[in-house]
Amino acid sequence: MTRPETPLLDRVAGPADLRALPDADLRRLSDELRSELIHAVSETGGHLGSSLGVVELSVAIHAVFHTPMDKLIWDVGHQCYPHKILTGRRDRIRTLRQKDGLSGFTKRAESDYDPFGAAHSSTSISAALGFTIGRDMGMPTGDAIAVIGDGAISAGMAYEAMNNAGAEGRRMFVILNDNEMSIAPPVGAMSAYLSRLYANEPLQKMRALAEGFEAALPPPMREGARRARQLVTGMGGQGGLFEDLGFDYIGPIDGHDLSQLLPVLRAARARATGPTLIHVCTVKGKGYAPAESSACKYHGVAKFDPATGTQAKSAPGAPSYTSVFGKTLTEEAARDPRVVAVTAAMPGGTGLDIMAQRFPARVHDVGIAEQHAVTCAAAMAASGLRPFAAIYSTFLQRGYDQVVHDVALQNLPVRFAIDRAGLVGADGPTHAGAYDLAYLCNLPGFTVMAAGDEAELMHMVATAVAFDEGPIAFRYPRGAGEGVELPERGTVLEIGKGRVISEGTDVAILSLGAHLGECRRAAAALEGDGISVTLADARFAKPLDRELLHRLAREHRALITVEQGVQGGFGAMVLHDLAANGLLDRGLAVRTMTLPDRVIDHASPADMYADAGLTADSIATTARTILRPAGRVVSLSSVV
Amino acid sequence: MTRPETPLLDRVAGPADLRALPDADLRRLSDELRSELIHAVSETGGHLGSSLGVVELSVAIHAVFHTPMDKLIWDVGHQCYPHKILTGRRDRIRTLRQKDGLSGFTKRAESDYDPFGAAHSSTSISAALGFTIGRDMGMPTGDAIAVIGDGAISAGMAYEAMNNAGAEGRRMFVILNDNEMSIAPPVGAMSAYLSRLYANEPLQKMRALAEGFEAALPPPMREGARRARQLVTGMGGQGGLFEDLGFDYIGPIDGHDLSQLLPVLRAARARATGPTLIHVCTVKGKGYAPAESSACKYHGVAKFDPATGTQAKSAPGAPSYTSVFGKTLTEEAARDPRVVAVTAAMPGGTGLDIMAQRFPARVHDVGIAEQHAVTCAAAMAASGLRPFAAIYSTFLQRGYDQVVHDVALQNLPVRFAIDRAGLVGADGPTHAGAYDLAYLCNLPGFTVMAAGDEAELMHMVATAVAFDEGPIAFRYPRGAGEGVELPERGTVLEIGKGRVISEGTDVAILSLGAHLGECRRAAAALEGDGISVTLADARFAKPLDRELLHRLAREHRALITVEQGVQGGFGAMVLHDLAANGLLDRGLAVRTMTLPDRVIDHASPADMYADAGLTADSIATTARTILRPAGRVVSLSSVV
Repeated sequence: MTRPETPLLDRVAGPADLRALPDADLRRLSDELRSELIHAVSETGGHLGSSLGVVELSVAIHAVFHTPMDKLIWDVGHQCYPHKILTGRRDRIRTLRQKDGLSGFTKRAESDYDPFGAAHSSTSISAALGFTIGRDMGMPTGDAIAVIGDGAISAGMAYEAMNNAGAEGRRMFVILNDNEMSIAPPVGAMSAYLSRLYANEPLQKMRALAEGFEAALPPPMREGARRARQLVTGMGGQGGLFEDLGFDYIGPIDGHDLSQLLPVLRAARARATGPTLIHVCTVKGKGYAPAESSACKYHGVAKFDPATGTQAKSAPGAPSYTSVFGKTLTEEAARDPRVVAVTAAMPGGTGLDIMAQRFPARVHDVGIAEQHAVTCAAAMAASGLRPFAAIYSTFLQRGYDQVVHDVALQNLPVRFAIDRAGLVGADGPTHAGAYDLAYLCNLPGFTVMAAGDEAELMHMVATAVAFDEGPIAFRYPRGAGEGVELPERGTVLEIGKGRVISEGTDVAILSLGAHLGECRRAAAALEGDGISVTLADARFAKPLDRELLHRLAREHRALITVEQGVQGGFGAMVLHDLAANGLLDRGLAVRTMTLPDRVIDHASPADMYADAGLTADSIATTARTILRPAGRVVSLSSVV
Repeated sequence: MTRPETPLLDRVAGPADLRALPDADLRRLSDELRSELIHAVSETGGHLGSSLGVVELSVAIHAVFHTPMDKLIWDVGHQCYPHKILTGRRDRIRTLRQKDGLSGFTKRAESDYDPFGAAHSSTSISAALGFTIGRDMGMPTGDAIAVIGDGAISAGMAYEAMNNAGAEGRRMFVILNDNEMSIAPPVGAMSAYLSRLYANEPLQKMRALAEGFEAALPPPMREGARRARQLVTGMGGQGGLFEDLGFDYIGPIDGHDLSQLLPVLRAARARATGPTLIHVCTVKGKGYAPAESSACKYHGVAKFDPATGTQAKSAPGAPSYTSVFGKTLTEEAARDPRVVAVTAAMPGGTGLDIMAQRFPARVHDVGIAEQHAVTCAAAMAASGLRPFAAIYSTFLQRGYDQVVHDVALQNLPVRFAIDRAGLVGADGPTHAGAYDLAYLCNLPGFTVMAAGDEAELMHMVATAVAFDEGPIAFRYPRGAGEGVELPERGTVLEIGKGRVISEGTDVAILSLGAHLGECRRAAAALEGDGISVTLADARFAKPLDRELLHRLAREHRALITVEQGVQGGFGAMVLHDLAANGLLDRGLAVRTMTLPDRVIDHASPADMYADAGLTADSIATTARTILRPAGRVVSLSSVV
């Protein structure tokens, strides 16, 4: 499809150009922006639905506030594509989420218009308050505006920030972008509360008002302005909860109607003296029929045909780790009635939607609330249940203290199913599952596993069901498995026992987790060079298989550990153990291959691992480099 | 002072005995319980004020609910002393917080009446929901009752749990223990909200009612019962915020008046069908004049004279690390107007009260809200300020994801002042600062320091003020410094450079942080044995001083690292670096001395470190054990 005609948008190199336009042109600008957005994302894939929902809001905020002096902070940041187009990044918008291209989230390094990057949810109000304090202390910054969704505002962190901002009383703006739909249908009482607001305030009427506006401009404009004044001066009287927290409340208003957005934002900007919440209702996927009719599907999309909305399908291949987990847990749950599952607003992403179809009452979606999710699971375990907390590695960071304090210190058998371990691709460094091995392996009593392939994942699910003596975690990556044959049912593994894949004599490669395939390829390459390799899959980062580890250390001149995680994790535990047992005293060429100590930018997972220096090639090179100085192996391979 | 006479309490071996008593006896029982509590804590020290505030509540809950089948969960748990006395632990109550004695918090291992231990705040509602789900799925558990303070309920985690519990709609109880005073005066909008409730509902009148009850029993009892019925059936109409979150609200009632507590709890137990919040007002320190008149002082007390309330004073010694931090930061703030400080409800504990006296507008107490605290500080840094986030090591765990996502990935120069690093004594394992080195050292761009003594802490504060290129953290322990001479002003340290304390030839001891004193003693003992020791203070866990490290590795037969933290931290970073640089290939007897991989129970810090095997003796023994097999050193020392 050819690019849409966008004569007005073509004249907007940045927000200053936008602010120079008369209000009457902003509707057309929004329409062109929407067309451009659809076309661009059809080429790149990405978070289309949420971006479509904030087209008018993006235009209106930049029209009213003086970005970048005013600090606009998009919560989560995946709805920022219109914002990127409007803030000087249109020429790169078709590189979105591609290697060396624009990030799919806001990012400080990319633009002055991204004053605070995001990707994890519910940070924006805290950030807005921080900038506001900076402004009040004389730093060169204007008003701070946080735009946060109805799902994200239900997280504890957002509440902490509202609570603090409400008490501080400083002038700042929170725009609640209420689309009644986060990734999954929003859960929790906050959602019910918002619905009750609709019941009291007839949004329909307001929409009718907005429609009337198109027929007859002046009177509704006056009406809108009058209403905005009322709202700003606190006569709206709708936002009980927010007002309880010390915010002035304005809304709800139609977030696709510039005749409501512009006067309300202007009135708020002109008159607000304290923390102000503006409640804006939007439709995810707005203005693109395939997305509007299927908002969940268009949360994150592949490349698609803009005319029909048909998404490109990936070639059929091995099942994803996520689906193998979901199916396996469902089958285990059928056998053991104590098995329950907990997700923090990610039933689909974690594969728990599969279990929820069969056992809806046994899958607990607690909302975007990882802290609560972990502790609630701990108490479930204390009551005798066998809870699986299925949380992405990067999001489990949100529940870290609860993992330490409520699970580990009490030795409660919570099962952590850690999806998206390692590098994850287009979502980039903010979503990397880089740290879980490091933050779990040093917790007393924890058992930590990582799956070498999807059959191993089945074994680990079975092992976690059976293991009731303390906390146990298993990690696995995003995406497709290796395509190995899957057993009928997983086998319960012996705790703390690895497995030897192949025996050799020169170098031992000890793999933990899903880089096992890379290790196999490295071993094959080395064998081709005449280097004899022992390849083992540790399975357990904790407890370590000390018998295996010590044998590998004693019987090889070199030992290489490989993991999809940073320093301080599996390799560190191996080093600590070797040191403590004197196995380094007489010399062992040990190398720990981990993610490097720097941020790896978004790209395909394979490209990211290449960037990280964690590939079959680099593993083989590491082995060769260690062995060569000794001469023996060099001569062998040079003979060949 | 002799022990109080407690004839009624003497007959209560457990809650069953309490439940057998007529209501008319419970007032006297409460009085005896209070006397016993004051006497016991006068001998042990501990959290007196909060425990005094819940004497009647503890009696009433055990009288009405069927513990331990019903799951009573005390949030934070430091108010649990009356509960411990009533639940079979009276004979050990004078061992509270002592080595081998009762924990100062609730603890699963101690009693069936502690179904879910606590120490960090705001976990109780999540736990109560977890037990409730267990009950609803057939596990052998009754009603769950969370008792949570007005400070703790302001944390995001409690909000997440309320939000989820409200939506779930399951029958469970949250008792809001509102004493208008957490450790410091509560901050935030939640506090203002609760105060507004008082304005609407004349609590005075209710107290007057309760006073009338003592003069004429039957009518007010009927009145109380009628009121309780009204409240349970939702006719109270006061708790807007809680009702918005899906809870039935009852209250506020006087938490020291059993004629209100008992009928309200009974009515709630008899009639509640969904989540129910009971708002109870109590006075911290109630019934003990020295505590009531000085609630903050009696939050945590030393041993004291129960007749006068005079607390035992510790012998004057070196200033505490905390006070050195507070004073140094205040002085730095006087020089640099960009310096601001953030605390999560711990101005006194962190020493920021010192700075707040001089610069009240530059110390931000954000409430019990570590997630928000960290991200807000990140935005302050982005605005150009120089924020110091002063948070205990154990509580920074609550903001871990924010440290990763908002600070490290954006490379924002937040300064983390990490107090209570290492083992902390009577507060036990839940408060141990064991993990911060491990969870910070693997974050890209982070600078991580640890103070060898209180003069070093001054240098590190100065270094952190000056360093504006990225995040920087410095850790220091609880309690008194070493008594070293303090400079007029701290010196800015060279980033990533350690210092050699003394040069030797046999073994190198590389210390990080406050175990430097132990390392000095170990070195002295070894020198006494004829073993020549190089002692170095790494100062930086990240970036490592590679030049120093490699020299130590090359020039000594053995290298011992020492840190007050678990595996995966400083020692692991040293091992990773030595491995990567081939320094282990030809043999190096390296040992990493860390906290062991198990929970260290509460005792004095010295006893805890002895339990942990981390003392001057164990360091010296480690060195001797490494060096002996080689023969050389043995012969030297045996000649002597």
